[in-house]
Amino acid sequence: MQKFALIGAGFIGSVHAHNLAANPAVDFKWVYDLDTQRAATLATRYGASLAQSLEQIFSDNELDAVFIASSTDSHAQNLRLAADAGLAALVEKPIDLHLETAKSTVAYVERSGIRAMVNFNRRFDRAHAELRECVRTGKIGDVSLLQLTSRGPALPPVDYLRTSGGQFRDQAVHFYDLARWITGEDPVQVHAYGSALTAPEIAEFGDVDTSISSLLFAGGGLAQIDCVRHTNYGYDERIEALGSEGMVESERQPSGHVTVFQGETRQSHGLHGNWFDRIQPTYAASLDAFVQALEEDREVPITLREGLKSQAIAQAAGRSVASGRSEVIDYSL
Amino acid sequence: MQKFALIGAGFIGSVHAHNLAANPAVDFKWVYDLDTQRAATLATRYGASLAQSLEQIFSDNELDAVFIASSTDSHAQNLRLAADAGLAALVEKPIDLHLETAKSTVAYVERSGIRAMVNFNRRFDRAHAELRECVRTGKIGDVSLLQLTSRGPALPPVDYLRTSGGQFRDQAVHFYDLARWITGEDPVQVHAYGSALTAPEIAEFGDVDTSISSLLFAGGGLAQIDCVRHTNYGYDERIEALGSEGMVESERQPSGHVTVFQGETRQSHGLHGNWFDRIQPTYAASLDAFVQALEEDREVPITLREGLKSQAIAQAAGRSVASGRSEVIDYSL
Amino acid sequence: MQKFALIGAGFIGSVHAHNLAANPAVDFKWVYDLDTQRAATLATRYGASLAQSLEQIFSDNELDAVFIASSTDSHAQNLRLAADAGLAALVEKPIDLHLETAKSTVAYVERSGIRAMVNFNRRFDRAHAELRECVRTGKIGDVSLLQLTSRGPALPPVDYLRTSGGQFRDQAVHFYDLARWITGEDPVQVHAYGSALTAPEIAEFGDVDTSISSLLFAGGGLAQIDCVRHTNYGYDERIEALGSEGMVESERQPSGHVTVFQGETRQSHGLHGNWFDRIQPTYAASLDAFVQALEEDREVPITLREGLKSQAIAQAAGRSVASGRSEVIDYSL
Amino acid sequence: MQKFALIGAGFIGSVHAHNLAANPAVDFKWVYDLDTQRAATLATRYGASLAQSLEQIFSDNELDAVFIASSTDSHAQNLRLAADAGLAALVEKPIDLHLETAKSTVAYVERSGIRAMVNFNRRFDRAHAELRECVRTGKIGDVSLLQLTSRGPALPPVDYLRTSGGQFRDQAVHFYDLARWITGEDPVQVHAYGSALTAPEIAEFGDVDTSISSLLFAGGGLAQIDCVRHTNYGYDERIEALGSEGMVESERQPSGHVTVFQGETRQSHGLHGNWFDRIQPTYAASLDAFVQALEEDREVPITLREGLKSQAIAQAAGRSVASGRSEVIDYSL
Repeated sequence: MQKFALIGAGFIGSVHAHNLAANPAVDFKWVYDLDTQRAATLATRYGASLAQSLEQIFSDNELDAVFIASSTDSHAQNLRLAADAGLAALVEKPIDLHLETAKSTVAYVERSGIRAMVNFNRRFDRAHAELRECVRTGKIGDVSLLQLTSRGPALPPVDYLRTSGGQFRDQAVHFYDLARWITGEDPVQVHAYGSALTAPEIAEFGDVDTSISSLLFAGGGLAQIDCVRHTNYGYDERIEALGSEGMVESERQPSGHVTVFQGETRQSHGLHGNWFDRIQPTYAASLDAFVQALEEDREVPITLREGLKSQAIAQAAGRSVASGRSEVIDYSL
Repeated sequence: MQKFALIGAGFIGSVHAHNLAANPAVDFKWVYDLDTQRAATLATRYGASLAQSLEQIFSDNELDAVFIASSTDSHAQNLRLAADAGLAALVEKPIDLHLETAKSTVAYVERSGIRAMVNFNRRFDRAHAELRECVRTGKIGDVSLLQLTSRGPALPPVDYLRTSGGQFRDQAVHFYDLARWITGEDPVQVHAYGSALTAPEIAEFGDVDTSISSLLFAGGGLAQIDCVRHTNYGYDERIEALGSEGMVESERQPSGHVTVFQGETRQSHGLHGNWFDRIQPTYAASLDAFVQALEEDREVPITLREGLKSQAIAQAAGRSVASGRSEVIDYSL
Repeated sequence: MQKFALIGAGFIGSVHAHNLAANPAVDFKWVYDLDTQRAATLATRYGASLAQSLEQIFSDNELDAVFIASSTDSHAQNLRLAADAGLAALVEKPIDLHLETAKSTVAYVERSGIRAMVNFNRRFDRAHAELRECVRTGKIGDVSLLQLTSRGPALPPVDYLRTSGGQFRDQAVHFYDLARWITGEDPVQVHAYGSALTAPEIAEFGDVDTSISSLLFAGGGLAQIDCVRHTNYGYDERIEALGSEGMVESERQPSGHVTVFQGETRQSHGLHGNWFDRIQPTYAASLDAFVQALEEDREVPITLREGLKSQAIAQAAGRSVASGRSEVIDYSL
Repeated sequence: MQKFALIGAGFIGSVHAHNLAANPAVDFKWVYDLDTQRAATLATRYGASLAQSLEQIFSDNELDAVFIASSTDSHAQNLRLAADAGLAALVEKPIDLHLETAKSTVAYVERSGIRAMVNFNRRFDRAHAELRECVRTGKIGDVSLLQLTSRGPALPPVDYLRTSGGQFRDQAVHFYDLARWITGEDPVQVHAYGSALTAPEIAEFGDVDTSISSLLFAGGGLAQIDCVRHTNYGYDERIEALGSEGMVESERQPSGHVTVFQGETRQSHGLHGNWFDRIQPTYAASLDAFVQALEEDREVPITLREGLKSQAIAQAAGRSVASGRSEVIDYSL
C-alpha cells in the first residue's frame, strides 16, 4: 500500500484524485492546492485529507509518494522537495519549461536516489502499446518511417497557451516521446515548420497552432509528426509505423458504432470530442505502473531523463522554426 | 437514496453488487445467497451486510428495493415476496420459465402496486439505443426489416443449458425484446428453425445451438434473428433496421484499434472474446434507469408485462420448430 | 474462336453485346430482337450482323453458340431451337417461369446433348467466389449459418413486376443459387414471409417487395435470405458464412473512397446506386467461363438442372408465404 | 476525331496504346519505338501502323497529336519536334531531368503555340479529384495541413533508378503536383530528409528510397509527403486535407472485399500489389481529358509550366537533403 499526496487540484488533478482513490494499492492521504477550495472539494469527494500547506505533506513521515500535478512553474521546486523528503514522485510534464532548470532539477533528484517518473501517459494507451509491441518484437522488421498525428479539437484559451511553452513543448513533446519509446532510439536531428493559423495573436509570444516536425534517426529512419490545435472534427490521434516487413497502425478511434446509410452516403460517428475522452484510460494505467514500480521496488517505467530527452527534441524543433535549419538535438545533461 | 438488497451472488450477482456499490443514488444494504460464502465475499468487498435469510431482507422496513439475481426457478417466488413486502423489484429475466407461472406472478405483482422491472439490459446499450432513437424519430421512415444477430462465443456448459429454458428463451428472448422495443410493436407471428450442431446431446432435452427466427409484424414489417452459441471468433452482436428512407446499423464492435498490413493482408482486432465484455456497460445503465424511476416515482422503463411478451414470442418460436408452422403469438395474460 | 449469336437486344442484351465484342475468344456474328431497331443499333455498334429472323440464326451452320437474353417467356422455345440446331446455349434465368415447362425444356435440351448454361452471373463475383473458396476449402469448418442480403435500390416498374414471376423467382432465386453453390448442398425445406410494403398494388398479382426466406439443410445448417426492392440507400448485397471454425463475409462494397470528418460525424460513400453497378463485372466473367468451357469442350459451370433447383426453392418459398408452413422442396425432374 | 501517334512502346507505352485504341475520339495512327519489335507488337495488337522513323510521324500532315512516352532523355527533343510540326503533345513527366533544359524546352514549345500537356495522371484519380473538389469548394474551410503518402511496393531495379532522377523527381514529384493542384497554391519553401535504407548502393548515385518532404505555403499552410520504395504490404497511396472546417481523406483502397473473422482477429484484403493496379484507371482518364481539350480547342488541363513547377519543388527538396536547410523554391522560368 503506497501512501500518496496529490499536489494540484485543477482539472488534471481531479482526474488523478479519482484514480488515486480507485487504485487498490494506493492510500490517498493528502491533497493540496494553492486554491484551498478546490483542494477541499477533491479531499471530500475522494476521502483524502486537505493539506493546509506543502510542509504538511513533505513532513509526513508516513508518506510514500507525491503526485505533482501543480502548475508547470512549480514542478521543479516540488520535485526538489520530494527529493529532500525522500518521497517517490510522479510528475506531470514538463519538469520545467526551461531546459537548463529541468536538467539541474533532474541532477538534483537523481542524487537523492528517489524514484521519480514523468507522466507521459500516452505510453499506456492500449493501442499505442500494442503497436510498440509489434515494432519491438520485430514483426514489421526494421523501422523506416513513423507517422504520428495529434490534432484538435480546438485552440486552448490564449492565456493557457501564453504559459504553456508553445506547441512543441506542450503538445508535440508527447509524440516525440512516443517516437523514442516505439523505436527505442533517440532521433539525432529535427526540422520543423510551424504556423499560427487559427489565432494569429499567439505568434506574438512565439507560439504556433499548426506544425509539422520531421525527425531523423541515426540509422536513417524517419518520423513525421503533425500537431494541430483546431480541427472542427474532434480530437484525432493516430500512429503508423512502417518497417521493412510491413506496417502497423494505431488507428483513429471512432466515438461510437452506429452507421446510417441514406441516399448516396454512409454517415457514422466521427472522433472523440476532445483529447481527454480519447486518452482518459491512460491516466489510471500510468498511475498504476508507477505504483507497481514502488510496490516491487524497481525502476519506474519513464525516468525524468526520458522527460529531458523529449524536451530536448521540442527545444530543437522550436529552434528549427526560427533558423530554417535541420537542428542537431543536444541530449547532454 | 434507494436502499437495496441483492438476492443472488453468482457471476451476474457480483456484477450487480459492483454497480450497486458504485451508484451514488443507491445504499447497498444487504446481499443474500443460498451459498453464504459467496454472499459474504460480495458483502465484504462492497460494504454491504450479509443477510442470513431472505426473511431478514423482506422484513427490513427501511429497505426500498430488491435486485433479484438468484437462480431462475426462484425469480417468481422472490417477486411475490417483494410484492408482499411492498419493495420495488428489479429482476433478471425470465420471470419464470413456465409462461403460465410467469403470468400469474405478474398478475400478483401488479395487484400489489410495487414498481417492478425485468432486466432486459441490452436496451441500455449505447449503440442499440442510438439505433432505436434513429428509428423512432422517423429518420429511416417506416421500418420494413430488422436484422438482429447474437452469436457466440462458445457453447455454455450443458448443465447450464439443461435448466436454461433453451436457446429461444435464454438467448433469443433478448433480441425479441429489442425488436419490440425498436419498432414499438408486437410481432404477430413467428417462424423458427433450430439445430443442435455444436453439441448433439442438447437435443435430448429439446435445445438447439443454432437458430433463426423470423418475425412478422401486423403492418407487414419483418425481422430476422439469428442466434448461435459457438463461433470461434468471439461474441458477435449487431442490429440493422431498414426503413423506407434508409438503413441504420448498430455495428459489430472491434475489440481494439491496431491494424497490421503485411503482404496481401490487413489484420486487425476481431470481436470481444465474450458477450460480457461486449455488453458490460449496459448493466450499470440498466440499474441506473431503475433507480432513477424510483427516485422520481415514475413507471420503470421495462415492465414485467414486457418481459411476458418477449417470453411469449420465445415460446411460440419453440413451438414453431416442432410444428414446422408459422405460429401466431399469444400475448394474452 | 466461338461464333455467337445474341438473341435479345434490351438492356441486358446490350451488356452481353459489349462483352461478346470484347471477348477475344468470341466471334460475335449475329444479333436478333423482335424490335429490329434496337438489334440494329447493337449490330452497328459492335460489328455484328443484324439477323432478320431467328431462322437466320438457327440455320447458320457455322454458328457455335447462342446467348439467349430475350423476354422470359421465349427462353424455353429458344433453348429448344438451340437444341434442335445443335448450338451451345447460354440463357438468362429463368428457363421458364412455369417450373413444369422449365423441367420439360431441360429434359428436351439434355437429350440433345448440347452444352447449355443458365446465367447465374453472381457466382462470378470476385468477392462471393472468394467467400465460397474459403468455405469449400474448410477454412471456416462446417457451415452452420449463411446470411445473404439483396436490397434495392428501388421498386422496378409495376409492369415489369407483373411478368417477373415475383420476388422469390426474380430476385431471391439468385441467392438461393448462391446458397447452394457456397455450401455444395441442396436445402431440404424453406419458410418465407413476404409483404408488399412499397407498392400495395403488386399484391394484386401475388407479388411482394420485402421478404425473408429461411432455408434448412439436411445436416441442420441454416440460411437467411432477405430481399428488398426499395432501400433509399442504393443497392446492398452481402453474404456471411458462419462455420464451426470462424466466419467469412463478402462485404457491402462502398461506391467510393473519400471520407469527410466534420463536427461529430464521419461521412463517406454509401453503396452503389443500383445493382448493375455493383455486379457489372460478373457478366463478362460469366460469359468468359461459358466460352472457356466450349473452347475446352467440357461441362459448363452452371447446368440447366442447377437453374431448375434454385427455381424449385423459389416455388417452395412462394408456397410457404401462402401456407404459413415450412415447405419441403421438391427437386424431382 | 484526333489522329495520334504514340512514341514509346515500353510498359507505359503499351498502356497508352490500349487507351488510344479504346478512346472513341482518337484515331490511333502510328506507333514508334527505337525497339522496332515492341512497336510492331503494339501496332498489330491495336490496329495502328508501325512508324519506321520519327520523321515518318512528324511529317504526317494529317496527324493531330503525339503521345510522348519514350525514354526520359528524349522527352525534350520530341517535344521540340512536335512544336516544329505543329502537333499537340501529351508527354510523360519529366519534361527533362535537367531543370534548365526543361525550362528552355517549355519556352520553345510555348513560342510554337501548340497545345502541350504533361501527364500528371494522378490528378484524374476519382478519389483524389473528389477530395480536391471538397477542398476547392470550401467545404473544409481554409487548408492548414496536407498529408500525402506514396509507398511501395518494392524497390525498382537499380538500373532504372540510376537514370530516374532520384526519388524526389521520380516519385515525390507526383505528390508535389497533387499538393499544388489541391490547394491551388505554389509552396514557397521545402525541407526534406531522405535515406537509402532498402538498398544502400543507390546512395552512390545520390538516390534515396525513404523520404519525407515538408512544404510551407505562403499563407502558412503546411504539407507532409512521405515516399517509400519498399513496403512489403503492396502499394499505399492516400491523401488527407485538413482545413479550418474539417478534414477530407482520399483513403487507402483495399484490394478486395472479403473478411475472415477467426479467433481474436479479423483478416481482410490489404492494398493493391503494385502502384499500377491502384492508379490504372487514371491513364485513360488523363488521355481523355487531353483529347477533349483538343476536340474543344481549349487549354489542356495540365500545362508544361505546371510540370516545371513541380519539378522545381523536387529540385529544392533534393538540395534540402544536402544542405540541411529549408530551401526556397525557385519557380522562375
